[in-house]
Amino acid sequence: MSVNDFDSIRPIVWDGAALSLLDQRLLPAEERYLPIRSLKEAADAITSMVVRGAPAIGVTAAYGAVLGAKDAAEHAGEGWVEALSADLDYLAAARPTAVNLGWAVARVRALIAVDANAETAIPALVELAERIHAEDLASNRRMGELGAEVLTPAEGILTHCNAGSLATAGFGTALAVIRAGWAADQFSMVYADETRPWLQGARLTAWELVKDGIPVELLADGAAAWLMQQRRIGWVVVGADRVAGNGDVANKIGTYSLAVNARHHGVRFMVVAPTSTIDRQIGSGADIPIEVRGSEELLGLAGQPVAAPGAGAWNPVFDVTPAALVDVLVTERGVVFQPDRAGIDKLFSAD
Amino acid sequence: MSVNDFDSIRPIVWDGAALSLLDQRLLPAEERYLPIRSLKEAADAITSMVVRGAPAIGVTAAYGAVLGAKDAAEHAGEGWVEALSADLDYLAAARPTAVNLGWAVARVRALIAVDANAETAIPALVELAERIHAEDLASNRRMGELGAEVLTPAEGILTHCNAGSLATAGFGTALAVIRAGWAADQFSMVYADETRPWLQGARLTAWELVKDGIPVELLADGAAAWLMQQRRIGWVVVGADRVAGNGDVANKIGTYSLAVNARHHGVRFMVVAPTSTIDRQIGSGADIPIEVRGSEELLGLAGQPVAAPGAGAWNPVFDVTPAALVDVLVTERGVVFQPDRAGIDKLFSAD
Repeated sequence: MSVNDFDSIRPIVWDGAALSLLDQRLLPAEERYLPIRSLKEAADAITSMVVRGAPAIGVTAAYGAVLGAKDAAEHAGEGWVEALSADLDYLAAARPTAVNLGWAVARVRALIAVDANAETAIPALVELAERIHAEDLASNRRMGELGAEVLTPAEGILTHCNAGSLATAGFGTALAVIRAGWAADQFSMVYADETRPWLQGARLTAWELVKDGIPVELLADGAAAWLMQQRRIGWVVVGADRVAGNGDVANKIGTYSLAVNARHHGVRFMVVAPTSTIDRQIGSGADIPIEVRGSEELLGLAGQPVAAPGAGAWNPVFDVTPAALVDVLVTERGVVFQPDRAGIDKLFSAD
Repeated sequence: MSVNDFDSIRPIVWDGAALSLLDQRLLPAEERYLPIRSLKEAADAITSMVVRGAPAIGVTAAYGAVLGAKDAAEHAGEGWVEALSADLDYLAAARPTAVNLGWAVARVRALIAVDANAETAIPALVELAERIHAEDLASNRRMGELGAEVLTPAEGILTHCNAGSLATAGFGTALAVIRAGWAADQFSMVYADETRPWLQGARLTAWELVKDGIPVELLADGAAAWLMQQRRIGWVVVGADRVAGNGDVANKIGTYSLAVNARHHGVRFMVVAPTSTIDRQIGSGADIPIEVRGSEELLGLAGQPVAAPGAGAWNPVFDVTPAALVDVLVTERGVVFQPDRAGIDKLFSAD
């Protein structure tokens, strides 16, 4: 088996001029690409979760900026940089927690700060977006290799939410390690938390793994501790939306509970994230903004009420796992065991 | 405030001759009582989960036996005891795990074994069922008082699944303590896990608390650890399906994860269960059989398919929390701190 056999999904398609996104709200029932014609449509696709996952949001934002630059050059003439700059504010505010959004927008801003000539700047923005896109894919393949080298054989491996091809340019972060580990025969079953309220595990991770022929069993989020108690799994492997400078990890709600339970049961806990997800401006997880979404995501399903009318709901969609509960951080630049500020700074020492 | 203000729900109604059950399959969308006209209808209501919760099943079975005795006396004449005895086998098999079902049927059998005269036995069976019904309610009110005395003030309190009026004759077990604690002003918010896969928290617990005017916020099961990390809650309060002789607690899947997280965060963990739920024949939780139900409960949500076709699912519906993670066990006979075999045996020392 080669890892190439397990890398079939591309959620972001750019043909040199037009962008389309695999609409993740419709999966697994329907596999449909949504055309994205403007910066505003790109931003709204991020807000409404047509596309989600920190690296995929970063790539989408880079292409969104290209569309915005073209619009600005066409409609604002000489003032195109100012017009685009205002639109970039809108794009950067599409979602708060994933750092790759701000990271991609910052790279765009840096470029137009030194080149206000649309004729040269726009091709450069296209080249930037295509490079971010290609680098993400290469980075994921590298993380898959590095993470799989760290895995020790176990009956099963548990993941949470979707840190797969759909969350990135392709191949995934946590699922990159799982794909590479599967190709290397390191476990016999992937367990996937269904991941309420959006069910990214049931809808997206299961869809990816079924598509690639890797066996997957879903479980209720509350059942993960019982799975660990029965010693069915050796590793929990998750992605990240933002990693603070000290190694604290913001990721999908429920991740922190897994980390506490993993430590309690002697199960190892691996975070897989490219260095673009590491935010060294943020000293610790306490400073990471945590998005709280509407209560309707918990109170109903597909517009149908499930919960008792009159009940409230608390719907934080991320939580923060302290670095002390992370056994391994895998990045495309290398692996950090027991991550802390020194270990993370070392990843950036060549910069 | 009096606890009486928070005790409005009666899932089992008996008017001296006719039985009706609040149909829990329809809640919260519809509040409809289903007339139960025969022993067979009572048994089928238990099997199909019109009524659920061990104490509520026990009460229903006792009334079902009354209906069966009247039918038998009318149609079988002198052979009524034999006819009823066969029907009681059917009733006892309605669900395998509910301990109170067998317990109620055994009390009925003991009565008809010593009184085969329908004219005196049937009024005695009515009196027995009404006593079981009233005793369950009184036991729950007592557990509410005892548990609320143990609670220490906190911003919030967290519960899981439904251990409320609907699972009992009324007032509940875990929700008895929450009702009494609310009346005593010991917290300002009840947090309720939605409790996948059946959503008993969202459908039933939220319905009960809204009805009684107690503020409730639902959360995804995976968010409970993050709730604890933010120190919003001082206590987790749950019911039990079976307590082993050493204090290990079988309860709805997800309970064990809460117990591990509660200990990690210094949040206290309370189990509320009548002594009829304690099974001293079972030495430890390792010997409690854990029911694993069909994968369709996870592959869909509220009846709609959600998961990727081709994915499997692992659906254990209970887990076992070791006694060492339980801070307090509340029964109608008294409270056991740090429960162990000696503490539990003491509850039964007057028997």
